[in-house]
Order: sequence, then C-alpha cells, then structure tokens
Amino acid sequence: MEKKQGAETAASSTKSRTGELNLPLHVIGFEVEELSPQKVTGRLRVTQNCCQPFKVLHGGVSALIAEGLASMGAHMASGFQRVAGIQLSINHVKRAELGDLVLAEATPVNVGRTIQVWEVQLWKVDPSNSQSKSLVASSRVTLLCNMPVPEHAKDAGDSLKKYAKL
Amino acid sequence: MEKKQGAETAASSTKSRTGELNLPLHVIGFEVEELSPQKVTGRLRVTQNCCQPFKVLHGGVSALIAEGLASMGAHMASGFQRVAGIQLSINHVKRAELGDLVLAEATPVNVGRTIQVWEVQLWKVDPSNSQSKSLVASSRVTLLCNMPVPEHAKDAGDSLKKYAKL
Amino acid sequence: MEKKQGAETAASSTKSRTGELNLPLHVIGFEVEELSPQKVTGRLRVTQNCCQPFKVLHGGVSALIAEGLASMGAHMASGFQRVAGIQLSINHVKRAELGDLVLAEATPVNVGRTIQVWEVQLWKVDPSNSQSKSLVASSRVTLLCNMPVPEHAKDAGDSLKKYAKL
Amino acid sequence: MEKKQGAETAASSTKSRTGELNLPLHVIGFEVEELSPQKVTGRLRVTQNCCQPFKVLHGGVSALIAEGLASMGAHMASGFQRVAGIQLSINHVKRAELGDLVLAEATPVNVGRTIQVWEVQLWKVDPSNSQSKSLVASSRVTLLCNMPVPEHAKDAGDSLKKYAKL
Repeated sequence: MEKKQGAETAASSTKSRTGELNLPLHVIGFEVEELSPQKVTGRLRVTQNCCQPFKVLHGGVSALIAEGLASMGAHMASGFQRVAGIQLSINHVKRAELGDLVLAEATPVNVGRTIQVWEVQLWKVDPSNSQSKSLVASSRVTLLCNMPVPEHAKDAGDSLKKYAKL
Repeated sequence: MEKKQGAETAASSTKSRTGELNLPLHVIGFEVEELSPQKVTGRLRVTQNCCQPFKVLHGGVSALIAEGLASMGAHMASGFQRVAGIQLSINHVKRAELGDLVLAEATPVNVGRTIQVWEVQLWKVDPSNSQSKSLVASSRVTLLCNMPVPEHAKDAGDSLKKYAKL
Repeated sequence: MEKKQGAETAASSTKSRTGELNLPLHVIGFEVEELSPQKVTGRLRVTQNCCQPFKVLHGGVSALIAEGLASMGAHMASGFQRVAGIQLSINHVKRAELGDLVLAEATPVNVGRTIQVWEVQLWKVDPSNSQSKSLVASSRVTLLCNMPVPEHAKDAGDSLKKYAKL
Repeated sequence: MEKKQGAETAASSTKSRTGELNLPLHVIGFEVEELSPQKVTGRLRVTQNCCQPFKVLHGGVSALIAEGLASMGAHMASGFQRVAGIQLSINHVKRAELGDLVLAEATPVNVGRTIQVWEVQLWKVDPSNSQSKSLVASSRVTLLCNMPVPEHAKDAGDSLKKYAKL
C-alpha cells in the first residue's frame, strides 16, 4: 500500500512537472519523464480528451507530443538559447485506443548550430505484456536554434534546468 | 447589450459544439465554426494552455488544429466512412503570441477514393485591424479514407451530421 | 514552318538555359521558363528517363523539380545569398503518364530573413484540351537563407542573374 | 590488377542493373546494391549532374534516391503488387560535395496491408577514413500498396525479381 502511495506521488509529481515545463502537453494528460539534451521521454494514458470521434488517439495529439518533446530537447541541446519549431512531419502507422498506454521518446537526428532535427517516436504498450510495444507514430521536427532569448522570456528555460539531467 | 449576450451565447455554443465534435480541439480552447465537405474553419484565442515556454503559440497546437480540421473535412467528404490521418506536414512561419486571435481554415487539395489530402492554414488577426491577417502555419494532412466504420463507432459521424452544411 | 522553327529554337534555348541554371533538372529533361523572386515555372515532357517501372512519372522526379524550382526562387528572393534546402514535403496526388506534359510552378509561402518556405505545384495538361490541367503533386520546401556565399561559389548566382526578371 | 578489373565489372553491372530497375536513379548516376524486402541500398558518386549551383549535392537528388529506394522496397514487401508513393518528407542535414561518395539505405518503418512507410538515410563517407560516415539526409516515404497491377505493366516487377534476394 505504501508502495502504491509512492507510485501515486511519483505520478502526481511527473504530472505537475509537465505543467511547469509545457502546458499544452499537461492539458492533454501527457507526463514528461526523462529530460536530457540527448533524450526526452514521457508517457500518455489515452483518455477521451486525446481521442478523435472513432475513439482512437487523435493524430494531432501525437503531433503535439512530438513537437513538445523535440522543443524541450532542442532547447537543452542549444544551451538554452531560444528555439522555434519550423517544420514537423509525422507518420501515423498504428492506432492507439482509449485506455492504451503510449510511450514517447525524442532523440536528436542532427544538432547543428543553426538547425536541429529531432526524431520522436510513439509506441503503445501491449496491455498483456508490458515488454511488448508497437510503433504508433514516427516524426521529425526541424527547429531553428540560433536565436537570442527575448527579455520577457528570460525564465523560459528555468523549469527545464530544474528537472533536466545536464 | 442584448447583442453582446447573443454573441456570448453564440460563442458558448461554438465551444460546446467543438466539445461534441472533437474533444482535443475543445480542450485546447479551439472553436469550430464553418463545417462542410469543402471547407472547415474555426478560431482560437491564444491562452497559456496553448503556449510553449516562450509564451508563443505551441507549434504542436497548430498541428493538432490542422489534423482535427482536416479529419472532420475528410470524414464529411468521404460520405461519413471511417477516415484516418496517415501523415501530417506543417510549416510554422510566424509566431502568434499570448492573447492573439488565430483563424484556421481547412480545404481539400485532392479528394480521392482512397486517399484525401487537405491543406490547413492558420493566420493571426492584427489586433489593430481585424481585416489584416498574417500566416502563422501552413500544413498538409494526408488521410486514408476507404475504411468501413467499426461497429463500436457507428455514431462517430453523428455530431458532424448535426452541425455540418452538407 | 518558320513558326515551328522559332518554337524549336525557343525550346532548345530553354533547355540549354536549364543546363546552365540547374544541371539535375536538365538531366531529367525539365525546362525552366519564368524566373523571378515571386515565381519560378517550367515544364517537363514525361519520358522513360523520368518514369518508375509502372511507366508513370517517378515521384522522386517531382520532388527533384520541387526542390530545384524552390531553390532558384529562394536564391533570388534572398538577394543572391547562399540558400540551402533543409526540408521538403511532397504529396503525390495524381499520376502523370509517359508522354504527358507536366507544368510546374513555385511561389513563396513566406520569405523570412532566415527561413523561406516555398510551395511548388505540378499539374498535367489534358492532351485533348490544353486549358484543362489537373494537380499531380503539391509540395513545400523549407530553405535556410542567411548564409554567406563561399569563395569558391561566388559565381553560383550568375546564370540566375542572366535569365531572371528581377 | 585482376582484382581491379573485377571491381570495375561489378561496378558496371550495378550500373546497368540500376538502369533496368529504375531509370531516373540511373540517369543521375546512382547504383543500386542490396535489394530485399527488408533493405535496399546503393551508392552515388557526387558528379556535376547531381549538384546545385553551389556545387553541393542537390537536395532533390537525395529526394529522388529516397523515393526510388523506398518504392523498390515497398514493391517487394507488398509481394509485387502495384505500389505508389503518396508522400515524401526529407530533412537535409549536412551537405555532400562534388566528388563525395554517398551511401543510401532504405528500411521499412511499417509494412501495413494498405500503407507502407519506409525510412531512407543518406550518408557521406569520409574520404580519409571509409569507416567514418556522416548523415546527409533522412527521409520518410509513405506508399499506397494494395493496388492491382495494370495489364500494360505486368512486367514492372520483373527486374526486381531478377536481382532481389527474396
């Protein structure tokens, strides 16, 4: 029972952490887990709020997760300069259904001085075997990275610095 | 004053309508307006819930809107068969800031029997001149369309049929 | 007959011009026509050299044309600074067959200081009615534009300057 | 010396093989090597014919290679049904220069009954150390696969069957 309580506390803390880091991700129920300039991961339990009318994960939610994780990764990898997504391409290859657990992982394809490209993949976990997972979506996010941080957003990287393994 | 009340009622009804049509769009604050197999439009007031840490519209929210509007359009244009987004590409060209009003419009590029391609554009309205707007993002959504509606989702198109001009 | 001779000369000159401007486009048989920072156009007669094994226009040839026209347009629109394509997305919507005449047109979606986005569309002309054409492919090319011209490529823009309407 | 002759013969045979398999790839100088439903590879020596005016590999040539290799792979993986590329997205991350050797590899991301997605990556080989290579471009090709082979193209898969490891 204590263990469960611990797990709940951990879950609640990844949730509130996501709220600090990236509000739209939090709003759709996503939880950020690992955070480093080499990898950003997290998870989403598919609820009604993330589904399209056929009761499967909305492709736009996958795209939102991809853009969110890639932006955090690129922000860290650029040394906390301002980054801006300029292009996102995503392939939806398998559907995830209401109740499914979806895992997401972002890794850099190329970290240039001006442009970064990140790959973000989403898998669903097989409910009967958590070791088995299948690809839901695969995407590429292109970001512009050599931009000065504007005065009114000097604290934009603070939450990242607080939670990231740098 | 009555006029304002009328406008508020209209706004509240587009909001609740969006909740029926596409929950993730509703959750981020988007309101669906025009609905037909030739065009789907709507609007978003940029709130904290749609922003990334630099206080500008999150690119993933633009992608979510694109996928959502294109899916509704393709669903209608396919005669209410099941549709599924298979690819989304989006270019973010200008930023929209907290408080900005963003308009979105989806139109078909090509409506094939098996594949549909929709273009979705987002503009921000100049606060000092509502006639002037500039492009925020431009995207293409590719959808697979020749799929039977599964038994458990027979009512997936009901809200669309209720609100659309067919 | 003289008229025909004139047309042949014109065709041969657009061909050799394309060779000067962009060798890969020339190699696959494409001819550049209009050239300005607002629009780049051209045409391709579909030969075996541009076909995949099913004897229809190879999607990669459409992509090559898209990248080529967008690059020339962006090069002019940037004031002849160095440009480099960083992302291309293309949807193939209808096939063009061996012998078809394909028209291509590139126009800017957004010309920023650092990033430009161009749209390139390809149509095939109905052989029985040259006024009627249908969309073959539609693409977006994202280019990085604020780059100095390297010493060894100082003359990279010379052919463009020679043939463009600036 | 005999060894060199052997290598030349091998090179000439991969060249003529590419001509049979995919004419546009042959025209730009690409040579198909490995051919199976799980992997398609090949190589390109960067010549003037594949360069844009800044004397670096034309991004459209990378896209052409991506579409070509993915199409051959999907054609095999679909059991030699007709396939058609419907979408290609490519990120150009590093430039390859005149004279560079570029390697390409296509592998399936997902082989569905109706839709296949392939990843194609291009690297350049470091001239001073052939073991070291760096990523030039990374792309995703989406193909429609459940299409009957038209009567006039019954032999479209013959060259593939001849050269592939099935």
